[in-house]
Amino acid sequence: MAARVLDGTAVANQIRAELAPQVAAFTARAGRPPGLGIVLVGDNAASEIYVRSKLKSAGEAGLRADLERLPASASLDALLAVVDRLNRSDAHDGILVQSPLPDAMGPEAERRVFDAVDPAKDVDGFHPINVGRLVQNRDALVACTPSGVIELLERSHVTIAGAHAVVIGRSDIVGKPMALLLLHRNATVTICHSRTKDLPAVAASADILVSAIGRPGFVTKPFVKPGAAVVDVGITSIADRETVARMYPPGTKRWETYQKRGALTVGDVHPEVAEVAGALSPVPGGVGPLTIVMLLKNTLAAATLRVAGGGG
Amino acid sequence: MAARVLDGTAVANQIRAELAPQVAAFTARAGRPPGLGIVLVGDNAASEIYVRSKLKSAGEAGLRADLERLPASASLDALLAVVDRLNRSDAHDGILVQSPLPDAMGPEAERRVFDAVDPAKDVDGFHPINVGRLVQNRDALVACTPSGVIELLERSHVTIAGAHAVVIGRSDIVGKPMALLLLHRNATVTICHSRTKDLPAVAASADILVSAIGRPGFVTKPFVKPGAAVVDVGITSIADRETVARMYPPGTKRWETYQKRGALTVGDVHPEVAEVAGALSPVPGGVGPLTIVMLLKNTLAAATLRVAGGGG
Repeated sequence: MAARVLDGTAVANQIRAELAPQVAAFTARAGRPPGLGIVLVGDNAASEIYVRSKLKSAGEAGLRADLERLPASASLDALLAVVDRLNRSDAHDGILVQSPLPDAMGPEAERRVFDAVDPAKDVDGFHPINVGRLVQNRDALVACTPSGVIELLERSHVTIAGAHAVVIGRSDIVGKPMALLLLHRNATVTICHSRTKDLPAVAASADILVSAIGRPGFVTKPFVKPGAAVVDVGITSIADRETVARMYPPGTKRWETYQKRGALTVGDVHPEVAEVAGALSPVPGGVGPLTIVMLLKNTLAAATLRVAGGGG
Repeated sequence: MAARVLDGTAVANQIRAELAPQVAAFTARAGRPPGLGIVLVGDNAASEIYVRSKLKSAGEAGLRADLERLPASASLDALLAVVDRLNRSDAHDGILVQSPLPDAMGPEAERRVFDAVDPAKDVDGFHPINVGRLVQNRDALVACTPSGVIELLERSHVTIAGAHAVVIGRSDIVGKPMALLLLHRNATVTICHSRTKDLPAVAASADILVSAIGRPGFVTKPFVKPGAAVVDVGITSIADRETVARMYPPGTKRWETYQKRGALTVGDVHPEVAEVAGALSPVPGGVGPLTIVMLLKNTLAAATLRVAGGGG
């Protein structure tokens, strides 16, 4: 008995195919493609990979995508000046400041920068006004990962209305918006976190279980009701031999990959969960590809609203 | 075995006593009292009572409170003009537009009016930017009823951290902010609603149960885990003999009150719940008094921020 695979790559490709004619139509109408400005500060290796992937996807989808780089030594004011320029740019409909920012910018830097992005261009959905509109179930630019999870569930025909959905993790960018999106689709929603008592039992009451905490293999069989749909939002690169072996022991294909590369990208969900879950999103190939395609979708939505509203 | 009473009147008086010297200090410092502008459109009887009660409480607390009345026939533009005037008034730190607005103003009127209130004066906590800041667990003006419930629980020594809190109702002004406030105090939170399956069983898993749906006597014994803290946010005036009798049968004191007045103010929670709950907020005298005192607290907070920020 193996869980059905919630194939994020396939769903992302489906959405990409739907976006293509819409991007073409926008470009013909506006005389320019939808534009995305990505700001990258410093030289975090993971951020480099994410940003390159976003730029490539945007380009392939027919969007204009510009990268603005700042050195790790840049001041917060310099970064805010770049955001301000992108806010005022007619060519840019979406702005994304890659997280994390260098520690040297101070603990408040991310919040100040996200607040500074024009809400109409806030394709990450991090501005409080977009978050508030999400709570009120109004049109809003919504964080890409949770809205990608909704697409994955809906297009995989997982019934949300009436289901009990349990979200593990209460971050501003995944857990909380995830809970709200599920609630607005008529799920009964429980949010769990590090202070939750008897987490396995709470998780095992879920028809839909979403884990977004970034703890490799944390969600094991006792967390999962037989037949439940499990969405794995955690993505962690692990190098530690023992941790890898606990999830993918010697003899498995993933172990071989680890042996070759010295590291392995894994999720919050232990592979043994496939034995009890009804459906399961893999890592990689689950939520990841959807996060990127939702960024493109948000950029097109922002562009369409801006042009309709007299911008651009 | 009777549940401990979560005494909203007593807690509200305690908060009122704490506010008094703060209001006096503000008034001495700013050369004027904190100011609240209340806008009332039309002649809804219940609204008249609420507004009168708010004005009286504000006056007694040493606040300036002004009532702006508009006839039921007023246009949305006329109402927006009043809001705009209060937004620009130096003497007013808080603005409250009493809900509901007349139907004739159209279905979008409330949303447009609440959006038009300066977020810094939004003492109802309805503006999306305040809602978004609440989600992000930042300083914000938060809706009065759910923040009053938190005060009631905390000051009655009900432990929130680690508890399983179940909120029945998912409105923008109670259910959703209530869930977020409990989550930020480290409860595991479940939000239920009309589409929830087996609601009694879900409710009965709660250590803290908050009902905010406005259905008289809906929450009965099977909804309540023995020893749970139950907060009744529903306030409904009922005239129907049978509905009253189901909650307060002939022979009870409340039945006599009903006989005298022809109507009775009741909550979502059936009185039989007192036999199993560990603590229970009454209606009236539970959450109601706290809602008003939180409005005063929000007005003082808005005034303090405005003056500190160079306003007023």
